[in-house]
This record gives sequence, C-alpha cells and structure tokens, in this order.
Amino acid sequence: MTSIAILGGTGHQGRGLAQRFVQAGARVIIGSRDPDRARATVAEWATGGQPIEVAGHTAAVGQGEVSILAVPFTSIDGLLDEVRSSFEDGAVVIDVTVPVTFASGKMAMLEVEEGSASEHIRARLPAAVGLAAAFKTIPAHLLAEGNEPLDCDEFVCADSDQARTRAIALVELLPGLRPVDVGPLSRARSIEHLTALAIAINRRHKIHDARYRIVGLR
Amino acid sequence: MTSIAILGGTGHQGRGLAQRFVQAGARVIIGSRDPDRARATVAEWATGGQPIEVAGHTAAVGQGEVSILAVPFTSIDGLLDEVRSSFEDGAVVIDVTVPVTFASGKMAMLEVEEGSASEHIRARLPAAVGLAAAFKTIPAHLLAEGNEPLDCDEFVCADSDQARTRAIALVELLPGLRPVDVGPLSRARSIEHLTALAIAINRRHKIHDARYRIVGLR
Repeated sequence: MTSIAILGGTGHQGRGLAQRFVQAGARVIIGSRDPDRARATVAEWATGGQPIEVAGHTAAVGQGEVSILAVPFTSIDGLLDEVRSSFEDGAVVIDVTVPVTFASGKMAMLEVEEGSASEHIRARLPAAVGLAAAFKTIPAHLLAEGNEPLDCDEFVCADSDQARTRAIALVELLPGLRPVDVGPLSRARSIEHLTALAIAINRRHKIHDARYRIVGLR
Repeated sequence: MTSIAILGGTGHQGRGLAQRFVQAGARVIIGSRDPDRARATVAEWATGGQPIEVAGHTAAVGQGEVSILAVPFTSIDGLLDEVRSSFEDGAVVIDVTVPVTFASGKMAMLEVEEGSASEHIRARLPAAVGLAAAFKTIPAHLLAEGNEPLDCDEFVCADSDQARTRAIALVELLPGLRPVDVGPLSRARSIEHLTALAIAINRRHKIHDARYRIVGLR
C-alpha cells in the first residue's frame, strides 16, 4: 500500500487529495504544525477508506513514501525550513502549489524569482531529494467533492526520472485522471499559468471546475 | 461576407487560417511584402471556396474588416512599422503570434518585456485600434490539414468589447472550434504558456496536434 504524507493537508487542496487517495486505497498521513487541531478537523471529513492519520510535519515525512507539499505558496518557505532536514537521500517530494494571489478580489500571479513555484522549492530542497510538480491544475473545489468524476488530464514535470515516475503513479491512483508528462521541472512555469487561466475562466464564466483535457494525445 | 486580411499569411499558421476561413465562406486577403511571390505560393494551395486574394500589407489592411497578424513573433516589429498608419480608428487586429524560439532544436519562450506578445503588440498599435488574441493554441500543423477536425477550444482575450466580439466571431466561423473568453489582454501571458506547453507535449510524446479542451465549461 502506498503511504502518502500530505504536508499542510488540512487546507482545501490537501483535504481533497487526502480523501481521494484514501478512497483509492492509499495510506495517508496529514502533516500539520498543530496535530491536535488537525486531528479534530480531519475527524469531520467523510472518507470511504481507512482513517486518515495525522502527525507533525517531520513525523509525517518520516512515515510517507512520498511527501506532498500542500500549503499555500506564500507559506512554503516556512514549511521547507521546518522539514528540510527530515528528508532522506532519495526521498521524493511532490509540489502542488500555485503562485497566485487574490488580493482585493482579483486573481493575479505572483512574480517568482526562480520562474515558478516548483523551481523556488527546488532551490530550497537538499540536492539528494527529487521533486516533481503535479495536481496543480485540478480544481480544489472539485477534488473536495468526493463523488464528482475528475475527468481531466494532470500535468507532471520533474527534476529526475524517479520523481517523475512517482508523481505519475500518484496521478494514476485517482480514477478519472490521466497523467501527461511534460518534461523538466521548469515546465512548471507553464503549468502554473494553466492554473491561473483556469481560475480566470471560472470567474469569468461563473463556474468552479474548469480544468484541462489535451486533445490529440492518445 | 466577412473579409479577413491575414498579414504574413503565406507562413504555416497564415496558410491554415486562410484555407479554413475561405472554406467557411469568408473572403480572405493575404497581405505580403512581396505580393507577386505570395501569389505564386497561394496558387499552389488547395481551397474549397472562392480564391484567396493577395495584396501588399497596407492594401490588405484596407480591404479586410479585420486584420490578423500571422508573422513569426520575431518579425512583428517590422510588420507593425509598415502597417501601423494604415489602420483606421476603430479597426480590429487579431494577434495569433507566440513568443517561442527553437534555437538549437530546443523550444523555449522568449522573454517579452511587456509580459506577452499581445501586450508587446498593444504597445505598438495606435490607441484607437482594438486588439484581441486568438488562435494562439491551435497547432499550425493541424490547421493546414484541411480535412482534419479541429475539435478543441480556442482562448480569446482582448482590450475592448469590440475586439473581443470580433475575435469570438472569427473562432466561431471555423467548425469544431469553441471560443473561450478569458478576459483582458494580459491573459495572453497564460495563453502563450499554453502554446509552449502544447509544443512540449508534442515533442515529448512524438505527436503533432496537442491542443486543449476545457472540461467543466458548458
């Protein structure tokens, strides 16, 4: 059974991923700075599988075969400071963050010096840890609606074959998602723009679940 | 009958658009710096409708109800210098360019100071001319295969309602395309990243026609 640590997992995106992974038969450990509070939150979630576990961030990293970073992008530096030394050599980290803000009600992309949230994170992880980007374009709202079919493509890019393989396997774990490998980690720049565009489409067309399907790829 | 000027229309993208628009019943005027040579090129194209006309760039602008900029992005400044003064107040221009290079075989996005090709062009057009971005994510290869169904969404953004309406009507003219309005012209930044990602997917998966469909939008 795959064991997945979801750091910052009590947020909207983390919750949806946790519920879907547990329903798919995985073991999920929510990492939180405040495990007691997180445990109370998680107790209220419906799950169709085994219970979702809760631990401190570093303990969660130690229990997962893979760690998903699911805090808002603006909180990522603090999280990485906390967990950086917990990763063993060869560990794989999955980044699902997107550098957008909703200041004064308007969605805008944050300028990230490294070019993308994933590259920002890459610069703050030990060299011996592999990093992939995935689950960036799936609407959190849809993820959290446990019974709605996902029915879309999820884009994966990575800094190593090991991280790529692991991220693709996680995408394939969720019914209705097709992984689309788009190459090196720097492609996260484009993936993050896809998310921004989907949010813009949601707002403009008063919908919640805009997402992508690649036509022409079998 | 809609009359459409396609400036730089003998390139790959221009050719596909010209053929598809003529098949859809529009009048198409290819604008070229060298109309005699362009006429010889156009004579070899198969069309299912009335003949495609050819004129100099400024004459083409004068004959079209709308002008499409279909030169490579790296040639756009020269084209705009040539045609800028030909646009009447209230004219509408459609930008289909994407700032990518294929230097030494690798696809990369060009850094555009204004943020996107469309904003770069906006800064070089008279204020009284409306600008929309469209047809940026449709593969040129697919466009030029006259009988292949397009079967995808095309993203439209614009600096004015007039330009937006006109661009949406052009997208609707081509069977199999659904226009998706994504808002202000600055969204071209994200649209151009979608194109870069589609090119990356084509190369990585050894296909030619990767394109987008938005799921969740009716």
